Amino acid sequence: MKSANGINLTMLCDFYELTMGNGYFENHMQDRVTYFDVFFRDVPDSGGFAIAAGLEQIVDYIQKLHFDEEDIAYLRGRGMFSEGFLDYLRNFRFTGDIWAVPEGTPIFPREPVITVRAPAIQAQLLETYMLLEFNHQSLIATKANRICRAADGRAVLEFGSRRAQGITGAVTGARAAFIGGCAGTACTVSDQIYGVPAAGTMAHSWVQMFESEYEAFAAYCRVYPDNATLLVDTYNTLKSGIPNAIRAFNDILKPLGIRKCGIRLDSGDIAYLTQQARRMLDEAGWTECAITASNSLDERLISELLRQDAKINSFGVGERLITAKSAPVFGGVYKLCALEDEQGQITPKIKVSENVGKITNPGFKKLYRFYNRESGMAEADYICLHDEVVDDSQPLEICDPQARWKRKLMENFHAVELMVPIFQKGELVYQLPSLREIKTYCAYQVSTLWPEVKRFDYPHQYYVDLSERLMALKDRMLAEHGRGSDQS
Amino acid sequence: MKSANGINLTMLCDFYELTMGNGYFENHMQDRVTYFDVFFRDVPDSGGFAIAAGLEQIVDYIQKLHFDEEDIAYLRGRGMFSEGFLDYLRNFRFTGDIWAVPEGTPIFPREPVITVRAPAIQAQLLETYMLLEFNHQSLIATKANRICRAADGRAVLEFGSRRAQGITGAVTGARAAFIGGCAGTACTVSDQIYGVPAAGTMAHSWVQMFESEYEAFAAYCRVYPDNATLLVDTYNTLKSGIPNAIRAFNDILKPLGIRKCGIRLDSGDIAYLTQQARRMLDEAGWTECAITASNSLDERLISELLRQDAKINSFGVGERLITAKSAPVFGGVYKLCALEDEQGQITPKIKVSENVGKITNPGFKKLYRFYNRESGMAEADYICLHDEVVDDSQPLEICDPQARWKRKLMENFHAVELMVPIFQKGELVYQLPSLREIKTYCAYQVSTLWPEVKRFDYPHQYYVDLSERLMALKDRMLAEHGRGSDQS
Repeated sequence: MKSANGINLTMLCDFYELTMGNGYFENHMQDRVTYFDVFFRDVPDSGGFAIAAGLEQIVDYIQKLHFDEEDIAYLRGRGMFSEGFLDYLRNFRFTGDIWAVPEGTPIFPREPVITVRAPAIQAQLLETYMLLEFNHQSLIATKANRICRAADGRAVLEFGSRRAQGITGAVTGARAAFIGGCAGTACTVSDQIYGVPAAGTMAHSWVQMFESEYEAFAAYCRVYPDNATLLVDTYNTLKSGIPNAIRAFNDILKPLGIRKCGIRLDSGDIAYLTQQARRMLDEAGWTECAITASNSLDERLISELLRQDAKINSFGVGERLITAKSAPVFGGVYKLCALEDEQGQITPKIKVSENVGKITNPGFKKLYRFYNRESGMAEADYICLHDEVVDDSQPLEICDPQARWKRKLMENFHAVELMVPIFQKGELVYQLPSLREIKTYCAYQVSTLWPEVKRFDYPHQYYVDLSERLMALKDRMLAEHGRGSDQS
Repeated sequence: MKSANGINLTMLCDFYELTMGNGYFENHMQDRVTYFDVFFRDVPDSGGFAIAAGLEQIVDYIQKLHFDEEDIAYLRGRGMFSEGFLDYLRNFRFTGDIWAVPEGTPIFPREPVITVRAPAIQAQLLETYMLLEFNHQSLIATKANRICRAADGRAVLEFGSRRAQGITGAVTGARAAFIGGCAGTACTVSDQIYGVPAAGTMAHSWVQMFESEYEAFAAYCRVYPDNATLLVDTYNTLKSGIPNAIRAFNDILKPLGIRKCGIRLDSGDIAYLTQQARRMLDEAGWTECAITASNSLDERLISELLRQDAKINSFGVGERLITAKSAPVFGGVYKLCALEDEQGQITPKIKVSENVGKITNPGFKKLYRFYNRESGMAEADYICLHDEVVDDSQPLEICDPQARWKRKLMENFHAVELMVPIFQKGELVYQLPSLREIKTYCAYQVSTLWPEVKRFDYPHQYYVDLSERLMALKDRMLAEHGRGSDQS
């Protein structure tokens, strides 16, 4: 019996990465230096921005890239790969360069967020896992950020492990949710390995295990006087659950002088029940008892509950967060953007499509974010060729590549390069931040976005513009393609 | 840097499993024998049935259950657990019994599909991971089965790793897709560890790496004459891609006497393009060239393409399968159904809800499927108490628990117990079938369902009925609850 927990992630690649790799090898193209960009085209849930996540796991993957003898034996058994190629894999490691936006950065459609420069076989092999990790964690971080913004300062706890799409769906999903703004998780191992604070108290089965609901509550308060959050909806929330909780608090916590406690509601009309619960708890003197609600919540339901003045201190969010249920796919892609010859000459590449929005940005590029020097707010992103340098002491006119008549004069701005070096010649050159640093950075970066960009419905489209040189290059390549497309 | 790949899965539990476990221990309830059922309430995509999957990984997990010293050190660091409990965890292993439906079995709402009988702390701890694995794999197997039924005998390949929700989202996702009916996957490691056949040929980047599309195709045919499937939509499918593919087939494959080859289309108007491609290939004599289509497909689009007479031999299905995009959550739950005292006396437990459909079935139960002896078709499922035996030599009147006036007389039927023993006293007593056996069993079992149950829209609701004794028990417990609910 084999487990997907503990595999060699180098083998988590689409089979075509290997058939292409062998093909490049057989055509003596394995040392051809290639440039690939990771970018995405649409924000999930029609939102105004996404949150980049997953880089730490990508770094770990790249540092561990290798083929074991059993991997090579498996590949040999497929009968498609040359012995020369299999021998090449034996010493396989990453020797290229990678630039990426730090985890927690708000990102926008069509801008490069990771760029890989590496020999063809290496660059190709990374595609599947790099996209998987970036897509999964960015999906969950983006969704968590929406949900936390809806909760408007109240704590959001990630409760979805049991409905996650697989082991890492739960475990790294909880990590991404924390980056996006969640205060913690129910997933114990995510606390153990990543330091995402894990919390949780009781299920309905605890209540059912005792002779009565009161007995269950009293027993729990005795064992955890400092962490007594009682699940009050097993039988009848208002007639039984809350009265029994108050009785247990009075009997066990009060004599100990403890005033902090909690109840959790997992069913029923949350708005009404939490208002009644708050009133009953306050009247009994338990004003510091926190109320947690947790029944199929997401950003829409949370906004609506708060609009109805539900009395909730924190939210437990399960399946709709851990699967990003309303839009469960993050569509990051990995596209060839340039080739480099032995003299270091870079030839840009473009992928043309009938759909204008799907045409790629050619060449080896970099990405700037322009912040207003006075307000500190992010005004636009700017994609240019790698050898261009933005002088932010001078005004700069930028224009929308999809609507060229839209021009904007940037003045009094501060230009920050968003992609930073991660690997150089195969060596890690990036100091990985701690998870809490990533979370803090994310919250700060999101605070630099105008509220119009953060709206859930019909957000303002943030500017992502191209430099004049990049736009001219793209135009020239499209024109060449148009002339040559019939016989290419 | 820590990875979620290779964790101790025992620690993949909701934190409340541990706080409850410690609570049971402190209340001397750790040896109290409990019964829990896994069941689900709604079929994803409003379908007529689901496919159970994930049992093999659950068995592996249970066999490996243990706490390492570092796990115990982490838990001690949380400052909530008694030394007695931590010591208890040191020798923790599963000593209970498990019954489950075999993987690949069509399953229906509200029937038990896994039953656990174990001491309280053990049974509670299993909840999170068991549900996670069952929910994830059943979700994907169910979705794959829908997509494969839409493809109507044509091969469906799972291509979604890069959009999967995490590592195991891809790797065990491909396993579940194979159970549900997929012919293979793009995910190499799923072939290596599970034997799901992996396939794949080239990406657009392969085509862009060469001087011309023809050169790229010819080079590929030279390396893989027996597996030459060419991606024809990099520049212009009809004006460039297919003519260049035909030219490469003529130049490289024809002299070798090879007639089997393929093209793949990943964009554009698939119905129109495949019809034109088929005509062009046939006219050039490449009648054995297979056409694969692969652009954001699911069961709806595949049905529609076939209705439009698209000329497609196989489908590559990505994100909409590997995330079950249209309904990405499988809502399996784990509910206490009975307690057993030291004399072996079983006390049924029920979880009541305002919502009638959410009321659980109490007691230690078993599950039968009734097949018609003549047609071989599945007619109804039947839930009864564990000590009831169905005599299928006699007619049996069954009734719908949600609509008691609906009665059906079963005659000439063959009763099969669906849940089989998996663990007895902690020992594995089940011979795990191979993945191909599971796939074959699944296809056969699905063939015993009437077409009305398999409709995508408004399927017939399959009968899942309760025995008279179970119904009487449930009625009695509900009546007791109604009387006692105000003061429980």
